[in-house]
Amino acid sequence: MFSGLLEELIQNLRRLPGIGKKSAQRLALHIIGMDKEEALKLSASIADAVKNFKNCSICNMLSEQDPCGFCSDETRQNNLLCVVENTQDVYLIENTNEYKGKYFVLNGLLSPLEGIGPDDIYFPKLLAYLKDNSVDELILALNPSAEGETTMSFLATQLKPFVKKITRLSTGLPFGGDLEYTSSITLGNALKRRYSIKDN
Amino acid sequence: MFSGLLEELIQNLRRLPGIGKKSAQRLALHIIGMDKEEALKLSASIADAVKNFKNCSICNMLSEQDPCGFCSDETRQNNLLCVVENTQDVYLIENTNEYKGKYFVLNGLLSPLEGIGPDDIYFPKLLAYLKDNSVDELILALNPSAEGETTMSFLATQLKPFVKKITRLSTGLPFGGDLEYTSSITLGNALKRRYSIKDN
Repeated sequence: MFSGLLEELIQNLRRLPGIGKKSAQRLALHIIGMDKEEALKLSASIADAVKNFKNCSICNMLSEQDPCGFCSDETRQNNLLCVVENTQDVYLIENTNEYKGKYFVLNGLLSPLEGIGPDDIYFPKLLAYLKDNSVDELILALNPSAEGETTMSFLATQLKPFVKKITRLSTGLPFGGDLEYTSSITLGNALKRRYSIKDN
Repeated sequence: MFSGLLEELIQNLRRLPGIGKKSAQRLALHIIGMDKEEALKLSASIADAVKNFKNCSICNMLSEQDPCGFCSDETRQNNLLCVVENTQDVYLIENTNEYKGKYFVLNGLLSPLEGIGPDDIYFPKLLAYLKDNSVDELILALNPSAEGETTMSFLATQLKPFVKKITRLSTGLPFGGDLEYTSSITLGNALKRRYSIKDN
Protein backbone atom coordinates (compact mmCIF):
# COMPACT_ATOMS: atom_id res chain seq x y z
CA MET A 1 0.00 0.00 0.00
CA PHE A 2 2.87 2.39 0.73
CA SER A 3 5.15 3.73 -1.99
CA GLY A 4 8.75 2.58 -2.38
CA LEU A 5 10.56 5.22 -0.33
CA LEU A 6 7.90 5.18 2.38
CA GLU A 7 7.97 1.39 2.63
CA GLU A 8 11.77 1.49 2.86
CA LEU A 9 11.62 4.08 5.64
CA ILE A 10 9.06 1.95 7.51
CA GLN A 11 11.30 -1.13 7.23
CA ASN A 12 14.33 0.81 8.44
CA LEU A 13 12.43 2.28 11.40
CA ARG A 14 11.31 -1.20 12.40
CA ARG A 15 14.92 -2.11 13.18
CA LEU A 16 14.73 0.20 16.20
CA PRO A 17 13.91 -1.37 19.57
CA GLY A 18 10.27 -1.18 20.62
CA ILE A 19 9.12 0.02 17.20
CA GLY A 20 6.58 -2.39 15.72
CA LYS A 21 4.79 -2.26 12.37
CA LYS A 22 2.14 0.25 13.45
CA SER A 23 4.59 2.59 15.21
CA ALA A 24 6.94 2.49 12.22
CA GLN A 25 4.08 3.46 9.88
CA ARG A 26 3.00 6.24 12.20
CA LEU A 27 6.57 7.55 12.54
CA ALA A 28 7.23 7.34 8.79
CA LEU A 29 4.05 9.23 7.93
CA HIS A 30 4.98 11.82 10.53
CA ILE A 31 8.50 12.15 9.13
CA ILE A 32 7.40 12.78 5.54
CA GLY A 33 5.10 15.51 6.85
CA MET A 34 7.75 17.13 9.07
CA ASP A 35 9.38 20.45 8.42
CA LYS A 36 12.04 19.45 5.84
CA GLU A 37 14.87 21.12 7.71
CA GLU A 38 14.02 19.36 10.98
CA ALA A 39 13.73 15.97 9.32
CA LEU A 40 17.09 16.43 7.58
CA LYS A 41 18.61 17.40 10.94
CA LEU A 42 17.32 14.12 12.37
CA SER A 43 18.73 12.19 9.42
CA ALA A 44 22.11 13.93 9.71
CA SER A 45 22.37 13.46 13.47
CA ILE A 46 21.80 9.71 13.08
CA ALA A 47 24.58 9.54 10.49
CA ASP A 48 26.90 11.78 12.54
CA ALA A 49 26.38 9.80 15.72
CA VAL A 50 26.84 6.43 14.13
CA LYS A 51 29.99 7.56 12.30
CA ASN A 52 31.57 9.12 15.39
CA PHE A 53 30.77 6.67 18.16
CA LYS A 54 33.04 3.69 18.65
CA ASN A 55 33.86 1.31 21.48
CA CYS A 56 36.34 2.74 24.00
CA SER A 57 39.55 0.73 23.67
CA ILE A 58 39.75 0.35 27.46
CA CYS A 59 36.18 -0.29 28.71
CA ASN A 60 34.27 -0.96 25.40
CA MET A 61 31.68 1.72 26.11
CA LEU A 62 30.37 3.49 23.01
CA SER A 63 31.93 6.94 23.03
CA GLU A 64 32.95 9.82 20.80
CA GLN A 65 36.40 9.89 22.37
CA ASP A 66 38.87 7.08 22.87
CA PRO A 67 39.52 6.52 25.74
CA CYS A 68 35.99 7.47 26.82
CA GLY A 69 35.21 10.21 29.33
CA PHE A 70 34.98 7.75 32.23
CA CYS A 71 38.28 5.96 31.52
CA SER A 72 40.12 9.26 31.10
CA ASP A 73 38.57 10.90 34.16
CA GLU A 74 41.39 11.08 36.74
CA THR A 75 38.98 11.97 39.55
CA ARG A 76 37.13 8.64 39.41
CA GLN A 77 38.19 5.82 41.73
CA ASN A 78 40.50 3.38 39.96
CA ASN A 79 40.09 0.65 42.57
CA LEU A 80 36.38 0.10 41.80
CA LEU A 81 35.29 -1.55 38.56
CA CYS A 82 31.64 -1.93 37.64
CA VAL A 83 30.90 -4.56 34.99
CA VAL A 84 27.76 -3.86 32.93
CA GLU A 85 26.10 -5.46 29.93
CA ASN A 86 25.99 -2.44 27.62
CA THR A 87 26.60 1.31 27.27
CA GLN A 88 23.03 2.14 28.25
CA ASP A 89 23.57 0.53 31.66
CA VAL A 90 26.53 2.87 32.28
CA TYR A 91 24.16 5.83 31.96
CA LEU A 92 21.54 4.15 34.17
CA ILE A 93 24.12 3.71 36.93
CA GLU A 94 25.48 7.26 36.46
CA ASN A 95 21.93 8.54 36.94
CA THR A 96 21.86 7.16 40.49
CA ASN A 97 24.81 9.40 41.53
CA GLU A 98 25.89 6.55 43.80
CA TYR A 99 28.98 5.40 41.90
CA LYS A 100 32.26 7.13 41.20
CA GLY A 101 34.44 4.24 40.04
CA LYS A 102 35.29 2.94 36.57
CA TYR A 103 33.25 0.80 34.18
CA PHE A 104 33.75 -2.20 31.95
CA VAL A 105 31.15 -2.99 29.27
CA LEU A 106 30.77 -6.68 28.37
CA ASN A 107 28.66 -5.97 25.28
CA GLY A 108 26.55 -9.04 25.92
CA LEU A 109 25.89 -11.84 28.37
CA LEU A 110 26.87 -15.49 28.28
CA SER A 111 24.23 -17.62 26.61
CA PRO A 112 25.23 -21.23 26.03
CA LEU A 113 21.95 -21.84 24.17
CA GLU A 114 22.71 -19.10 21.66
CA GLY A 115 26.37 -20.05 21.48
CA ILE A 116 27.60 -16.86 23.17
CA GLY A 117 30.71 -17.80 25.11
CA PRO A 118 33.35 -15.93 27.17
CA ASP A 119 35.30 -14.74 24.11
CA ASP A 120 32.16 -13.07 22.70
CA ILE A 121 31.70 -10.87 25.77
CA TYR A 122 35.23 -9.49 26.16
CA PHE A 123 36.08 -11.83 29.01
CA PRO A 124 39.78 -12.04 27.98
CA LYS A 125 39.93 -8.24 27.91
CA LEU A 126 38.35 -8.00 31.37
CA LEU A 127 40.87 -10.54 32.68
CA ALA A 128 43.74 -8.52 31.21
CA TYR A 129 42.30 -5.34 32.73
CA LEU A 130 42.27 -6.90 36.20
CA LYS A 131 45.82 -8.17 35.77
CA ASP A 132 47.07 -4.73 34.66
CA ASN A 133 45.13 -2.61 37.15
CA SER A 134 44.81 -2.79 40.88
CA VAL A 135 41.09 -3.27 41.44
CA ASP A 136 39.85 -3.73 45.02
CA GLU A 137 36.20 -4.36 44.25
CA LEU A 138 34.59 -5.75 41.12
CA ILE A 139 30.87 -4.97 40.99
CA LEU A 140 28.89 -7.28 38.69
CA ALA A 141 25.93 -5.03 37.79
CA LEU A 142 24.11 -7.44 35.48
CA ASN A 143 20.39 -8.16 35.18
CA PRO A 144 19.11 -10.89 37.53
CA SER A 145 17.97 -12.87 34.46
CA ALA A 146 19.03 -16.40 33.47
CA GLU A 147 21.83 -15.04 31.25
CA GLY A 148 22.86 -12.44 33.83
CA GLU A 149 23.06 -15.03 36.60
CA THR A 150 25.06 -17.42 34.41
CA THR A 151 27.47 -14.63 33.48
CA MET A 152 27.87 -13.40 37.07
CA SER A 153 28.49 -16.90 38.31
CA PHE A 154 31.10 -17.52 35.57
CA LEU A 155 32.86 -14.19 36.14
CA ALA A 156 32.90 -14.61 39.93
CA THR A 157 34.53 -18.03 39.66
CA GLN A 158 37.09 -17.06 37.03
CA LEU A 159 38.06 -13.66 38.40
CA LYS A 160 38.29 -14.49 42.11
CA PRO A 161 42.11 -14.84 42.00
CA PHE A 162 42.59 -11.39 40.45
CA VAL A 163 40.52 -9.13 42.66
CA LYS A 164 40.01 -8.68 46.41
CA LYS A 165 36.23 -8.50 46.49
CA ILE A 166 33.47 -9.36 44.01
CA THR A 167 29.96 -7.99 44.64
CA ARG A 168 26.64 -7.88 42.83
CA LEU A 169 23.64 -5.52 43.02
CA SER A 170 21.28 -6.26 45.88
CA THR A 171 18.04 -8.03 45.09
CA GLY A 172 14.82 -7.41 46.98
CA LEU A 173 11.78 -5.18 46.98
CA PRO A 174 11.85 -2.28 44.51
CA PHE A 175 11.48 1.15 46.12
CA GLY A 176 7.77 2.02 46.33
CA GLY A 177 6.89 -1.64 45.83
CA ASP A 178 3.90 -3.39 47.34
CA LEU A 179 4.17 -6.85 48.90
CA GLU A 180 0.85 -7.86 47.33
CA TYR A 181 2.14 -7.19 43.80
CA THR A 182 5.65 -8.56 44.26
CA SER A 183 6.55 -11.90 42.70
CA SER A 184 7.25 -14.67 45.17
CA ILE A 185 10.85 -14.96 43.90
CA THR A 186 11.45 -11.27 44.63
CA LEU A 187 9.78 -11.58 48.02
CA GLY A 188 11.80 -14.71 48.80
CA ASN A 189 15.02 -12.87 47.88
CA ALA A 190 14.03 -9.92 50.04
CA LEU A 191 13.44 -12.25 52.98
CA LYS A 192 16.68 -14.17 52.47
CA ARG A 193 18.73 -10.97 52.22
CA ARG A 194 16.99 -9.09 55.05
CA TYR A 195 19.26 -6.74 56.99
CA SER A 196 19.31 -5.37 60.52
CA ILE A 197 17.69 -1.97 60.76
CA LYS A 198 20.53 -0.86 63.06
CA ASP A 199 23.09 -1.56 60.32
CA ASN A 200 21.50 0.92 57.98
CA MET B 1 25.55 13.73 30.89
CA PHE B 2 25.51 12.77 27.19
CA SER B 3 28.13 13.99 24.73
CA GLY B 4 27.36 16.60 22.07
CA LEU B 5 26.41 14.36 19.14
CA LEU B 6 24.45 11.99 21.35
CA GLU B 7 22.54 14.83 23.01
CA GLU B 8 21.77 16.28 19.58
CA LEU B 9 20.47 12.93 18.35
CA ILE B 10 18.30 12.60 21.48
CA GLN B 11 16.84 16.07 20.95
CA ASN B 12 16.11 15.32 17.29
CA LEU B 13 14.46 11.99 18.11
CA ARG B 14 12.24 13.73 20.66
CA ARG B 15 10.57 15.65 17.83
CA LEU B 16 8.94 12.39 16.75
CA PRO B 17 5.42 11.68 18.00
CA GLY B 18 5.18 9.45 21.06
CA ILE B 19 8.92 9.61 21.73
CA GLY B 20 9.59 11.04 25.20
CA LYS B 21 12.90 11.73 26.93
CA LYS B 22 13.47 8.13 28.05
CA SER B 23 12.54 6.58 24.69
CA ALA B 24 14.75 9.07 22.85
CA GLN B 25 17.72 8.16 25.07
CA ARG B 26 17.06 4.46 24.59
CA LEU B 27 16.74 4.83 20.80
CA ALA B 28 19.84 7.03 20.56
CA LEU B 29 21.97 4.59 22.56
CA HIS B 30 20.65 1.79 20.38
CA ILE B 31 21.44 3.71 17.19
CA ILE B 32 25.07 4.42 18.12
CA GLY B 33 25.50 0.72 18.81
CA MET B 34 23.80 -0.41 15.59
CA ASP B 35 25.54 -1.96 12.64
CA LYS B 36 26.94 1.17 10.91
CA GLU B 37 25.55 0.23 7.51
CA GLU B 38 22.04 -0.30 8.85
CA ALA B 39 22.06 2.97 10.77
CA LEU B 40 23.25 4.88 7.69
CA LYS B 41 20.44 3.23 5.69
CA LEU B 42 17.96 4.54 8.25
CA SER B 43 19.50 8.02 8.07
CA ALA B 44 19.43 8.01 4.26
CA SER B 45 15.88 6.75 4.01
CA ILE B 46 14.66 9.57 6.27
CA ALA B 47 16.43 12.12 4.06
CA ASP B 48 15.20 10.47 0.84
CA ALA B 49 11.62 10.29 2.02
CA VAL B 50 11.48 13.84 3.27
CA LYS B 51 13.06 15.19 0.09
CA ASN B 52 10.75 13.27 -2.20
CA PHE B 53 7.37 13.55 -0.53
CA LYS B 54 5.30 16.65 -1.14
CA ASN B 55 1.65 17.57 -0.90
CA CYS B 56 -0.42 16.44 -3.89
CA SER B 57 -1.53 19.58 -5.74
CA ILE B 58 -5.09 18.26 -5.94
CA CYS B 59 -5.86 16.61 -2.56
CA ASN B 60 -2.88 17.76 -0.39
CA MET B 61 -1.95 14.21 0.57
CA LEU B 62 1.79 13.64 1.06
CA SER B 63 2.95 11.65 -1.95
CA GLU B 64 5.99 10.89 -4.08
CA GLN B 65 4.02 11.68 -7.23
CA ASP B 66 1.95 14.71 -8.10
CA PRO B 67 -0.94 14.16 -8.57
CA CYS B 68 -0.90 11.35 -5.97
CA GLY B 69 -1.86 7.76 -6.73
CA PHE B 70 -5.43 8.28 -5.52
CA CYS B 71 -6.11 11.43 -7.52
CA SER B 72 -4.68 9.91 -10.69
CA ASP B 73 -6.45 6.56 -10.25
CA GLU B 74 -9.16 6.51 -12.95
CA THR B 75 -10.87 3.51 -11.40
CA ARG B 76 -11.84 5.31 -8.21
CA GLN B 77 -15.28 6.95 -7.92
CA ASN B 78 -15.13 10.67 -8.69
CA ASN B 79 -18.51 11.42 -7.18
CA LEU B 80 -17.43 10.53 -3.62
CA LEU B 81 -15.04 12.77 -1.71
CA CYS B 82 -13.74 11.85 1.74
CA VAL B 83 -12.34 14.74 3.78
CA VAL B 84 -9.68 13.72 6.31
CA GLU B 85 -7.40 15.57 8.69
CA ASN B 86 -4.05 14.21 7.47
CA THR B 87 -2.28 11.74 5.18
CA GLN B 88 -2.18 9.06 7.86
CA ASP B 89 -5.99 9.02 7.97
CA VAL B 90 -6.06 8.23 4.23
CA TYR B 91 -4.15 5.03 4.93
CA LEU B 92 -6.37 4.18 7.91
CA ILE B 93 -9.45 4.44 5.69
CA GLU B 94 -7.78 2.51 2.84
CA ASN B 95 -7.06 -0.26 5.32
CA THR B 96 -10.78 -0.84 5.85
CA ASN B 97 -11.27 -1.71 2.15
CA GLU B 98 -14.68 -0.03 2.43
CA TYR B 99 -14.02 3.07 0.36
CA LYS B 100 -13.23 3.51 -3.31
CA GLY B 101 -13.78 7.25 -3.78
CA LYS B 102 -11.38 10.18 -3.73
CA TYR B 103 -9.79 12.00 -0.79
CA PHE B 104 -9.16 15.55 0.31
CA VAL B 105 -6.65 16.20 3.11
CA LEU B 106 -7.32 19.29 5.24
CA ASN B 107 -3.88 19.20 6.91
CA GLY B 108 -5.38 20.33 10.20
CA LEU B 109 -8.63 21.11 11.97
CA LEU B 110 -10.24 24.43 12.85
CA SER B 111 -9.19 25.64 16.27
CA PRO B 112 -10.36 29.13 17.13
CA LEU B 113 -8.37 28.98 20.40
CA GLU B 114 -5.12 28.32 18.55
CA GLY B 115 -5.99 30.78 15.82
CA ILE B 116 -6.37 28.09 13.13
CA GLY B 117 -9.03 29.34 10.74
CA PRO B 118 -10.56 28.14 7.43
CA ASP B 119 -7.65 29.46 5.32
CA ASP B 120 -5.16 27.40 7.36
CA ILE B 121 -6.91 24.11 6.57
CA TYR B 122 -7.29 24.44 2.78
CA PHE B 123 -10.95 25.36 3.00
CA PRO B 124 -10.77 27.64 -0.09
CA LYS B 125 -9.13 24.78 -2.04
CA LEU B 126 -11.84 22.34 -0.94
CA LEU B 127 -14.50 24.84 -2.00
CA ALA B 128 -12.85 25.24 -5.40
CA TYR B 129 -12.63 21.43 -5.73
CA LEU B 130 -16.38 21.08 -5.15
CA LYS B 131 -17.13 23.85 -7.65
CA ASP B 132 -14.93 22.26 -10.32
CA ASN B 133 -15.93 18.63 -9.77
CA SER B 134 -19.28 16.94 -9.59
CA VAL B 135 -19.32 15.38 -6.12
CA ASP B 136 -22.48 13.59 -5.01
CA GLU B 137 -21.43 12.80 -1.46
CA LEU B 138 -18.95 14.57 0.77
CA ILE B 139 -17.87 12.36 3.70
CA LEU B 140 -16.45 14.28 6.64
CA ALA B 141 -14.19 11.64 8.21
CA LEU B 142 -12.82 13.73 11.07
CA ASN B 143 -12.21 12.76 14.71
CA PRO B 144 -15.21 13.25 17.01
CA SER B 145 -13.10 15.66 19.11
CA ALA B 146 -13.88 19.30 19.92
CA GLU B 147 -11.83 20.49 16.92
CA GLY B 148 -13.22 17.77 14.67
CA GLU B 149 -16.81 18.62 15.57
CA THR B 150 -16.18 22.35 15.06
CA THR B 151 -14.63 21.68 11.67
CA MET B 152 -17.39 19.30 10.52
CA SER B 153 -20.06 21.74 11.58
CA PHE B 154 -18.32 24.60 9.74
CA LEU B 155 -17.75 22.55 6.58
CA ALA B 156 -21.29 21.20 6.56
CA THR B 157 -22.75 24.70 6.77
CA GLN B 158 -20.44 26.26 4.20
CA LEU B 159 -20.42 23.46 1.65
CA LYS B 160 -24.12 22.55 1.63
CA PRO B 161 -24.84 24.56 -1.55
CA PHE B 162 -22.09 22.80 -3.51
CA VAL B 163 -22.74 19.13 -2.89
CA LYS B 164 -25.82 16.87 -2.86
CA LYS B 165 -25.18 15.01 0.38
CA ILE B 166 -22.85 15.55 3.33
CA THR B 167 -22.22 12.66 5.73
CA ARG B 168 -19.99 11.90 8.69
CA LEU B 169 -18.66 8.65 10.19
CA SER B 170 -21.10 6.88 12.47
CA THR B 171 -20.55 7.16 16.21
CA GLY B 172 -21.41 4.43 18.67
CA LEU B 173 -19.96 1.34 20.27
CA PRO B 174 -16.58 0.23 18.95
CA PHE B 175 -16.49 -3.32 17.56
CA GLY B 176 -15.66 -5.72 20.39
CA GLY B 177 -16.57 -3.07 22.95
CA ASP B 178 -18.13 -3.73 26.32
CA LEU B 179 -21.01 -1.62 27.69
CA GLU B 180 -19.42 -1.62 31.14
CA TYR B 181 -16.24 0.01 29.85
CA THR B 182 -17.83 2.44 27.42
CA SER B 183 -17.97 6.13 28.29
CA SER B 184 -21.46 7.47 28.91
CA ILE B 185 -21.08 9.89 25.95
CA THR B 186 -20.33 6.97 23.62
CA LEU B 187 -23.18 4.95 25.06
CA GLY B 188 -25.50 7.95 24.76
CA ASN B 189 -24.50 8.36 21.10
CA ALA B 190 -25.04 4.66 20.46
CA LEU B 191 -28.52 4.89 21.96
CA LYS B 192 -29.42 8.06 20.07
CA ARG B 193 -28.26 6.60 16.73
CA ARG B 194 -29.68 3.09 17.25
CA TYR B 195 -30.86 1.42 14.04
CA SER B 196 -33.44 -1.18 13.18
CA ILE B 197 -31.96 -4.67 12.96
CA LYS B 198 -34.05 -5.33 9.84
CA ASP B 199 -32.39 -2.41 8.01
CA ASN B 200 -28.97 -3.92 8.35
